[in-house]
Amino acid sequence: MHTYRGKLAYDGTKYAGWQVQPNQRTIQGLMETALLKVTGHSCRVLSSGRTDAGVHAHGQVISFKVETELAENTLCRAINAHTPFDIYLRQLEITRDNFHPIREAVSKHYRYIIQPGPIMDPLSLKYAWSHPKALDLDAMRAAAVHFIGEHDFASFEASKSDRKTSVRNVMELMLDEYTQHDARFITMDIRADGFLYNMVRNIVGSLSRVGKGKEHPDWIVDVLSACDRKRAGQTAPPEGLYLMDVDYGET
Amino acid sequence: MHTYRGKLAYDGTKYAGWQVQPNQRTIQGLMETALLKVTGHSCRVLSSGRTDAGVHAHGQVISFKVETELAENTLCRAINAHTPFDIYLRQLEITRDNFHPIREAVSKHYRYIIQPGPIMDPLSLKYAWSHPKALDLDAMRAAAVHFIGEHDFASFEASKSDRKTSVRNVMELMLDEYTQHDARFITMDIRADGFLYNMVRNIVGSLSRVGKGKEHPDWIVDVLSACDRKRAGQTAPPEGLYLMDVDYGET
Repeated sequence: MHTYRGKLAYDGTKYAGWQVQPNQRTIQGLMETALLKVTGHSCRVLSSGRTDAGVHAHGQVISFKVETELAENTLCRAINAHTPFDIYLRQLEITRDNFHPIREAVSKHYRYIIQPGPIMDPLSLKYAWSHPKALDLDAMRAAAVHFIGEHDFASFEASKSDRKTSVRNVMELMLDEYTQHDARFITMDIRADGFLYNMVRNIVGSLSRVGKGKEHPDWIVDVLSACDRKRAGQTAPPEGLYLMDVDYGET
Repeated sequence: MHTYRGKLAYDGTKYAGWQVQPNQRTIQGLMETALLKVTGHSCRVLSSGRTDAGVHAHGQVISFKVETELAENTLCRAINAHTPFDIYLRQLEITRDNFHPIREAVSKHYRYIIQPGPIMDPLSLKYAWSHPKALDLDAMRAAAVHFIGEHDFASFEASKSDRKTSVRNVMELMLDEYTQHDARFITMDIRADGFLYNMVRNIVGSLSRVGKGKEHPDWIVDVLSACDRKRAGQTAPPEGLYLMDVDYGET
């Protein structure tokens, strides 16, 4: 029995998210089914964190323990042969037995892509938030700096959560833009030591209120200190969110 | 009654192509339904050319004649409100009564995107050809020059066609590459005075044979002169193809 660590990419559009749920197609469920077919025994596949329905990943980190005589590369190909094409295991290697993809994560990097109006791009509907109105990037940047550093993010946590602490450290937050076929896109890259449930999407929803001119950039300071979910903006939709990479502090 | 000219973008994934067909969801059919709802009378929507099922467009040019008191911008918004989100009318203006989007087209620009192996990108499955093997871009470029200029493209025309002539003038053909999240993409941009049925996809399929090392770049010369569809490569799949722009010789 070996412990394996892998890097997984997926298009979340058609799935009910990462976590196994009865009668739902989930990424975790399909990975476990593939491993059962390949190794002949069942196992649990862990990940660095659950992603919701519609959320994508370029670099989700997973781990599982299986008994197999296949070499790492062969096992990787065999798993890919038994999963749908929109789930793809990029890398796989044997790691130490006590590796844990959640507990050991030092930081995670998410990207969120917004496609603000008025010009719409019908080709990115499932891959960006088609925001009906124009957004002021400079105002959003002025608001975004308030998130950087260690803060209590309770205002940006989905209400049903039960974490011990809602303090998190946002190490980087960068907004950028690009144009493709006349349509404008705004990207937000965020890295933190951990994320509360819906935290990225609630930050984006709040920044969009600033971008629309509904709130001043410094409104974010008040929302953070209120520690009340009702004070922040809407939860941005899942299709704009990508789990990019997980850092385990390795050199 | 006015004649309107518009620029249309769509994600072809869910549609049975441009042309109206019984019991199928087509772009033309949905545009005509939207216009019926908005204006109260039926009309025919013409385009610069049919696109097949799964083929995308950033700049399809369309025209139609309707009776309406709505201003151009209002009519444009009303049409967008009555079509699915993955079809989007970017621009609309009144044009001269005899404007014809096929007959008057001076050239069309298509892009084809290939995502060659071995690294696969599960997020671009419906937006690029996931080609299982690596491709040699330099060899493909050496082959591509043979397509430039006026040639009889009979070898690259789907067999069921009945055009008067299969001579076309390829004005530009450019291959490029980029990397996104470790995955490599090859783009082919092609502009010609007209395209035979499946011509772009047959050119791409033939270039992929060269890219895989199955044929020498100069093999293209033999295939062109043979004027025999059986001599060329496979038809590349529709999901990599984008109609980018149509040129009407306007300054």
